[in-house]
Amino acid sequence: MSVRELAEKTNQAYQKFLKQGSTKLKNEILESIAEGLDCNREFLAEENKKDLENGAKAGLSTAFLDRLALNEKRIQGMIDACREVAQLVDPVGKIENMVFRPEGFKVGRMRSPIGVIGIIYEARPNVTIEAAVLCMKSGNAVILRGGSNAFHSNMALTKILQEALKKHDVDPNLISYLSSTDRKAVDEMLVQDDLIHLIIPRGGEGLIRSVVEKSKIPVLKHYKGVCNIFVDKYSDIDMAVRITVNAKVQRPAVCNSLETLLVDESIADQFLPNALQALQDEGVEIRGCEQTRAIYSKDVISATEDDYYEEFLDLIIAVKVVDGLDEAIHFINMYGSAHTESIITQDVSHAQQFLKEVDSASVMVNASTRLSDGGLYGLGAEIGISTDRLHARGPMGLEELTTYKWIVIGDGHIRE
Amino acid sequence: MSVRELAEKTNQAYQKFLKQGSTKLKNEILESIAEGLDCNREFLAEENKKDLENGAKAGLSTAFLDRLALNEKRIQGMIDACREVAQLVDPVGKIENMVFRPEGFKVGRMRSPIGVIGIIYEARPNVTIEAAVLCMKSGNAVILRGGSNAFHSNMALTKILQEALKKHDVDPNLISYLSSTDRKAVDEMLVQDDLIHLIIPRGGEGLIRSVVEKSKIPVLKHYKGVCNIFVDKYSDIDMAVRITVNAKVQRPAVCNSLETLLVDESIADQFLPNALQALQDEGVEIRGCEQTRAIYSKDVISATEDDYYEEFLDLIIAVKVVDGLDEAIHFINMYGSAHTESIITQDVSHAQQFLKEVDSASVMVNASTRLSDGGLYGLGAEIGISTDRLHARGPMGLEELTTYKWIVIGDGHIRE
Repeated sequence: MSVRELAEKTNQAYQKFLKQGSTKLKNEILESIAEGLDCNREFLAEENKKDLENGAKAGLSTAFLDRLALNEKRIQGMIDACREVAQLVDPVGKIENMVFRPEGFKVGRMRSPIGVIGIIYEARPNVTIEAAVLCMKSGNAVILRGGSNAFHSNMALTKILQEALKKHDVDPNLISYLSSTDRKAVDEMLVQDDLIHLIIPRGGEGLIRSVVEKSKIPVLKHYKGVCNIFVDKYSDIDMAVRITVNAKVQRPAVCNSLETLLVDESIADQFLPNALQALQDEGVEIRGCEQTRAIYSKDVISATEDDYYEEFLDLIIAVKVVDGLDEAIHFINMYGSAHTESIITQDVSHAQQFLKEVDSASVMVNASTRLSDGGLYGLGAEIGISTDRLHARGPMGLEELTTYKWIVIGDGHIRE
Repeated sequence: MSVRELAEKTNQAYQKFLKQGSTKLKNEILESIAEGLDCNREFLAEENKKDLENGAKAGLSTAFLDRLALNEKRIQGMIDACREVAQLVDPVGKIENMVFRPEGFKVGRMRSPIGVIGIIYEARPNVTIEAAVLCMKSGNAVILRGGSNAFHSNMALTKILQEALKKHDVDPNLISYLSSTDRKAVDEMLVQDDLIHLIIPRGGEGLIRSVVEKSKIPVLKHYKGVCNIFVDKYSDIDMAVRITVNAKVQRPAVCNSLETLLVDESIADQFLPNALQALQDEGVEIRGCEQTRAIYSKDVISATEDDYYEEFLDLIIAVKVVDGLDEAIHFINMYGSAHTESIITQDVSHAQQFLKEVDSASVMVNASTRLSDGGLYGLGAEIGISTDRLHARGPMGLEELTTYKWIVIGDGHIRE
């Protein structure tokens, strides 16, 4: 089947599901997927083993193979995910802001599915299930395309997904998999803008930039997280140290961890020795500006300008002394990646100014950047975090996988 | 100045305006623009005359020259637009859905500007003012690029816009104009995705497709309006005729006018003779399916399949008899352009099914498709109508020119 044909079939399945896809049916399908995964643990392990063996032969890294593995814990995680998504409120059909207009008709907005969503991701087979169930619960059809090293695992998972759809008389093409391992197949998918309505790439920056370059379809993406914390002159120093350490070391390899620490010069003398010592106690490498090194010099490397743009994703931090809130905001809007930033302050005006002027997806007061997360924000499961500014910004849950339509209820109303 | 430099300067102006752009200041600037237009009526007329004379020499059509003309009425319209936009509620800073999370911190969303918006449009100089003031009021910077036949008019208008900004100590690059008439300059603008955040093209389908093809920046667009009305078997026939005639003839050249009329076969005998006679009385050409022609044959041309995809923008209508609501919905989702559709029915279940399953930007019950309009929906001024599914769908007002950021207020909260 060509990519065009696959997109056509998926689009047709979407159209049918517009009519068929009640909340009850969607939740029943989710339970059937959970059961399908549960009954096929052995089959999944066998298929996954093929990928793992091929990967080992091909010399893939241990970390890569770890992400590829469908062990018992990951399979249970996928089963749990299906049941958790079944518990989430269905956003489709929700009517917002319905009002009577002066002319006597009613106008409002109804949440509705986006349509056909293409998900392009790496060799992490659990994403196959998580992406498919979130798209389906929000009434969308999906075309999945995972990394080719997970081919056998993804084929097995797709079989389970499609069997569950068939069991409920739903067109199995609602959850399609682009099985060609030819890279050109992805390029071809990205130009089907009459059939596919959104592309969500998940992976490294190179993959994402290449998708944006080639796609005629709108793309929702996550480039990187260069998160900043600014310690204001009116901050509680103990709190500032505690939040800084948490944001840097609690899980350094993820996008919402801290990369650059800014501090007001009038509090730097008191804050930096405590904070940098605490970071070093946790094994963090410090790259400081000249003022930082003048205050605390022990094992502090000199920071370069490039360090302030860098997403270290590791136990490394850049530290800079600034002359106040205005410079901090300017610095963050210039060097940051508009992901998540936090101010530590007890001053209400400074907090308000930071919230208003920092131009990022998540802006915080007295909180660790690690709290930037769909689950913690109350979205339930998360399809990803957007660093885009349109449609969805920051963590994306079920509602961010929908759009709206205007609904108008008249009683013979015409345009005069 | 290169396109890159222009984009950089506009982006810098945007950053400064994040801090500076209070509602009060924005409204004062709008009043200064209105005054600037009012004081410069003669200057505008002179500059516009250059464009009109060049256009006449180049053999442009009367309709083209009419759209290009800045007559007294159009100038007054621009002045009024500035003052109307000043009256609209400023969406920036509005906080939505603020809640305490179980962990004890607060999370909500704050409306914020999108950033730098590029507007590409045809030789209609009044769009220069309307687009600029809507973008500015919503806190955005804008790069304008109008049709080259309006060059002198647009330079004059840009001068007035920038003088008003300077008067209030705002960086005049907040409202920039891409003055190179080289088409390559537009292509270059479309790849500055680190500096420009949104492109809104306004014009013919060819222009828009070319922008989508070349742009690395997200595009919000309006392709076309192939609007449908379905007359259900439970409809009030007088109402159905009145709405049909209004939707087709009240202003046939615009996107929300009716193009295809569908009727349930069980009511076609009663409805079609009345409706088609009434349309013909207004000078409408009828293109009917075989069943339509069997019921009413007088001057009814045979419809081809292409007619159902066609945006006539003229006194022409396609008419088709269908075997019920399901076929009507399927037909609309297949042939329509997902702009605006209406069902005429007295049956609540049919109305609900139509609202749920028709996959268009505006879906109506017992109303003329001509009501699909930002002003009538209560949005105030309208930057355009989107046929996209992401970010904004249907009429776009000030709020659709904003995005949101997540705000988190903690009290020392960290990730455990």
